[in-house]
Parts: sequence; structure tokens; C-alpha cells
Amino acid sequence: MSRTERSPRSTIHDVARAAAVSRQTVSNALNNPHRVKPDTLARVHVEIDRLGYRPSSAAQTLRHQRAGAVGVELNVMGEATSDVAHPFLVELSLAGPAHGCHLVPFASRDATPMLAGYHDMVRRRLVDAFVIADTHTGDPRPGWLAREQIPYAAFGRVYDDPSVTTWADVDGYAGTSEAVDHLVERGYTRIGYLGWPSGSEVGDERHRGWVEASTRHRLPDAPEATASQALAEATARAERLLDGVGRGGAVVCASDGLALGVLHAGLRRGWTIGRDIGLTGFDGSASARMHGLTTLVQPLDRIADHCLALVHDLLAGGSAPHTGALFIPTLTIGDSTDPTKEGTS
Amino acid sequence: MSRTERSPRSTIHDVARAAAVSRQTVSNALNNPHRVKPDTLARVHVEIDRLGYRPSSAAQTLRHQRAGAVGVELNVMGEATSDVAHPFLVELSLAGPAHGCHLVPFASRDATPMLAGYHDMVRRRLVDAFVIADTHTGDPRPGWLAREQIPYAAFGRVYDDPSVTTWADVDGYAGTSEAVDHLVERGYTRIGYLGWPSGSEVGDERHRGWVEASTRHRLPDAPEATASQALAEATARAERLLDGVGRGGAVVCASDGLALGVLHAGLRRGWTIGRDIGLTGFDGSASARMHGLTTLVQPLDRIADHCLALVHDLLAGGSAPHTGALFIPTLTIGDSTDPTKEGTS
Repeated sequence: MSRTERSPRSTIHDVARAAAVSRQTVSNALNNPHRVKPDTLARVHVEIDRLGYRPSSAAQTLRHQRAGAVGVELNVMGEATSDVAHPFLVELSLAGPAHGCHLVPFASRDATPMLAGYHDMVRRRLVDAFVIADTHTGDPRPGWLAREQIPYAAFGRVYDDPSVTTWADVDGYAGTSEAVDHLVERGYTRIGYLGWPSGSEVGDERHRGWVEASTRHRLPDAPEATASQALAEATARAERLLDGVGRGGAVVCASDGLALGVLHAGLRRGWTIGRDIGLTGFDGSASARMHGLTTLVQPLDRIADHCLALVHDLLAGGSAPHTGALFIPTLTIGDSTDPTKEGTS
Repeated sequence: MSRTERSPRSTIHDVARAAAVSRQTVSNALNNPHRVKPDTLARVHVEIDRLGYRPSSAAQTLRHQRAGAVGVELNVMGEATSDVAHPFLVELSLAGPAHGCHLVPFASRDATPMLAGYHDMVRRRLVDAFVIADTHTGDPRPGWLAREQIPYAAFGRVYDDPSVTTWADVDGYAGTSEAVDHLVERGYTRIGYLGWPSGSEVGDERHRGWVEASTRHRLPDAPEATASQALAEATARAERLLDGVGRGGAVVCASDGLALGVLHAGLRRGWTIGRDIGLTGFDGSASARMHGLTTLVQPLDRIADHCLALVHDLLAGGSAPHTGALFIPTLTIGDSTDPTKEGTS
């Protein structure tokens, strides 16, 4: 990995002069890059590269007090990975450099993987903090991390402890509500709902959005059903739901996976998705793109950026924000809500 | 992150005595864990944890000469991520500790992301080596990494340089060949093929497996077709392919994504997958599991383990193996090749 073509003697002064910035800015570019404007940051790094500048050993020692890394659990338990697990990791990796950190994923096949895996990462001194995802009621991680005084930010609200404000999440209520608005605008009048069994905070919030918008638009009572994410079950429940909604109606779904069940049920009865039945998913998964589904894309880039900013503030000893951050998903329109088109495959 | 409840004075002797192993074994457990039997490794780590043992600063200095990390690019270019990208990262993360390393993912949205991203990881001294995936003819990464003398192992053959032997890959030929064997055993006699346009090494190898097995079983000429991974295209090509194969026949596909196209084409004409048309995918993706597809599961655990062993040997200065390692995929049977069942949804 040697780069002998570059001078080893460049100093922080040389870099500052070449990039026309102060020494402090060069230092910030290395240690607190989020404080530096993107174009300045890029210019400084060009000069660091060109001059082959290496931070002094003192600065390096300072940096070595921290791993400079944030741990992310890759959940390997259960059948299906979340549709957004991989895209979220991509966004965290993309956002890392601007927050002066990198990501270290970890996984475990143990029956009780979570705390053992987190503990192992800390024991190996690989990370300074964690970003956790898929939070839920009864989640043991927030409490454990707090007791161990390990900083973390959550993608998802910390339901068991409303005093925790270091989280970012998607606004499910706003999402399904917007899906109904869109379907009404497209001319669908009978708009049913396929959700998860009640009791999951994420699912209940998305359901409330459909109820609110249906009431606001004074839509006639439309049927609703629940299913797990398993495609066979979602398809079976969708069969009956489609009987109730009828040809020409629409279905708002709590997830892209559930929408896939409606799509299959529709295909089986020879309906064209879009023309014969309007359909919206939720999450903006690769599967939704592939199937031409109208869906609510989670703003994973902003959520990842916010999580890393929170972690950075916690590590810097700054005060936590007063509230978590709720991000509105983006309605992305596919053929599945176009009543005039041949529809999706 | 302090763990003050544990004695800070434990030595490597204490750990060795408690675990009933030699000092060298404790040292290996920390620095060369792949040389230690898994149960011994677990026992040593239990004692390290229990006794709160911390390696001496000299040993730590030695360790600090290396980042102890392996970089993995998360490809964000293009529409769809590979079905195995996330599962492969999970397997790498699971295998890491046994090879004394952790993983650091990175990503870039630049138009020419690859070399810039790799370069940045090296400049930031975050990794000692890389595992690269999705190798292909004309791939610039192997040549660049070799010129920069950066160790790497490849998931996929290094097609442009047969002298490179630090790779692990799945045996596509063996996979599709076994798919045909399975379909013949299940009583299907007219077995067509849906593959990618010729020219991709992975696709051509999978196609050869179907040709070989069809010849070996003296099967009548069956139609074949090609499509990209885009579902709409795969479905359209599958429509015509199903006309040629006919009800009661079967289709071997080069990927689970292509198989999804056949599944949709079948559903559209009211066929039950399995009973009316046999169908096999390739890759063992979450989508295949969800749809009940018979598929060839890539042995990602063994491939990940082999890649990290190769990287470890390269970093230790050991000689590279004489040949790459080809792993046979595992045929996993779903409803899509069961001629007696109601079939998949």
C-alpha cells in the first residue's frame, strides 16, 4: 500500500496553503468533516491526496482513542430480511465519511443474537457507538446500551422509553394518508386496506393514515384485512379483500410485500393491475420497482445522515436533541395506480 | 464502555491456565483465530471475557500495524442490487471473527465509483485488504489492486487474469445440470431454458449445464430464450417460451429473477406452477423462498469463509493457493417442481 511517489514531508500548512483554507479547516476536514462545507471538504482532500499529507502522530493518537466506527447489526434471524436493511446500510456507508466515521456490520446466528453480538463488538473495541434498526416494544437493546453507556441512534422510535430522543424514523401516517389522496386523485373511489395484524407500532400507524384520509375524503366504508409478510398468506387474504373491494377499486398496503400478495391475487383472476385494481405499497423496495408498484419510498439517505449526526453529537458530548426526527416518505408513482394503462406485470 | 467490574491484572498465563491451553494458543486465539479449533477458540474467549484479560500494549501495537479490517464495496450503481449482495455481506460478517478481522462496507454514488472508493478506503487506512464481488471481463479492480499491491480475494473468477487464484465461486455448470436431473426425476420431459443474453461468463456457464444435462438425458430439443433481469422483459420472453415448452413441461432459469418472469407468465395464463409447468431458479434468493421456487442456493457461507481465509493468508505473507475454489450450489426444492401440488402463489 506504499505511495512512494508522494513526498512524506508535507505538513498541515502545505495543505492549508494549497487549498486556500485555514489550518483549522484542514484539521476539521480530517476530524470533524461534517463541519466543513462539501466543496471545501473535497478541495482539502484533493490537496491531502496530491501532497501525500499524513496527520502527525499526535493527531493520530488522538484519533486512535476512538475506533472511528459505528456498528450495525445485520439481523440474520427469521426467514426474510427487511426490504430496507441493505439500502439503509448503503446509505449509512455513503453518509459515513461526512460524519468522520465508517461502519462495521456484525451478525450472529445465536438464538439470542442481539446483546451477545453488541457485547462482542464492544469487547473487540471495534466501534464507538451503534445505529440500531427495527426497534419495537420490548426491544432489549436501547435499555442495555443505555445501561452500558454506549452511545447509539435508532432508525425507528424507542417505544419503551419516550425520553430517548436520538432516533430518526419514517412517518407512516403521512405515507398511507398520501397514498389515499393519490388514489382519490386518480379516480378510485372504493379504497380498501391490507395491513399487518394490529399490535405493531409501525403497522398501526400506517393503518391510521388510511383511516384518517378515508374519513377526510368521505369515502364509503371499504373492507380491510390483515396478513403477515408471507406471500402465500398475503395472497390468500388479498383474494377475499378483492372480492370486497371489487373491480375498479383500489388497495392501500402497509408494505410492498403485502402489495405483492394483492398483485398475485389480481393476476390470478386475470385483472390488470392499475386498470382493474389500483394498488399502493410502502417502503420503496427493489421488489416494488421491479413490479412497477406505486409505493412510499423511505427517505433512507436522510434517516442515515440523521442517525450518524446524532451519534457524532453524542460522542462529542453534545446534548441530545429535544425530539426525534420524523421524515415524510416520498410517493413514487408506478403503473399500479394508473387506471388507463395496461398495468404492471 | 468501561468494564470496571473485571480485574485489569489478568495475564495471558491466567487465561491459558483457566482454558487449559498453551500461551501460544491464547495468542493465536487473539491474532490468528483461524488456526484454533472452534471449540477451543470459544473456550479461550470465555476465559478472556471472564478474566477481563487485555493483550499487552506490545501485542496491541503489533495489532495496530494493521487495520484488522477487510473492505467490501456496496455497489449502488444500476437499478437492482444483486440478490446475493446482502446475504454475502452477512456471511462475511459472520465469518470475520474466526479470521481475526471485521468488515468495513463502503459505497459511492460517483459515475466511476469503484477505484475512487477503493482508493479512499486505503487512503483513510481503514482496511488492509478487500473482498470484491461481481467480477467480470474488463473489471478494472483486479488489475488496479494488483498494481497497488493491495491484497484481495474475489467472489467470482478473475476472468482477465487466469494467473490469479485468490478467488471462490459457485459452480454454475453443476447447478443447472443438477436442475435438469431433478426435473427429469420428477417426470418432466420437455425442459426449456431461460437465460441471459450470451456473453456473460456466469450466464454462459449456467447455460452449458442445461445443454450438457439435456444431451445426457437424451431429451428432445426444447426451446430456449434470453432476457435481462428486468421483470417485464423476462415475463414477455417467458410468454413465448411457454408456448414452445407447452403445458406439462418445465423451464430451467439462469436466475431467480428470470424464474419470476416465468412464474408471472404462467399465472397470467392460469397455469399452476409445479403442476402445469416445472420451474427452477438459481441463487437461493429471498424472492425464491417467498415464491416457493426450487432454486440452486449459493453456498455463501463457504464462499465467504474461503475469501477471508485467502485474504488472511495473503496478509500473513503465505503463498497463494494453486487454484481458485469452486463450490457446488445446493438444490433446494420448492413447490415449483412438484407436479402433484397446487403449486406456488
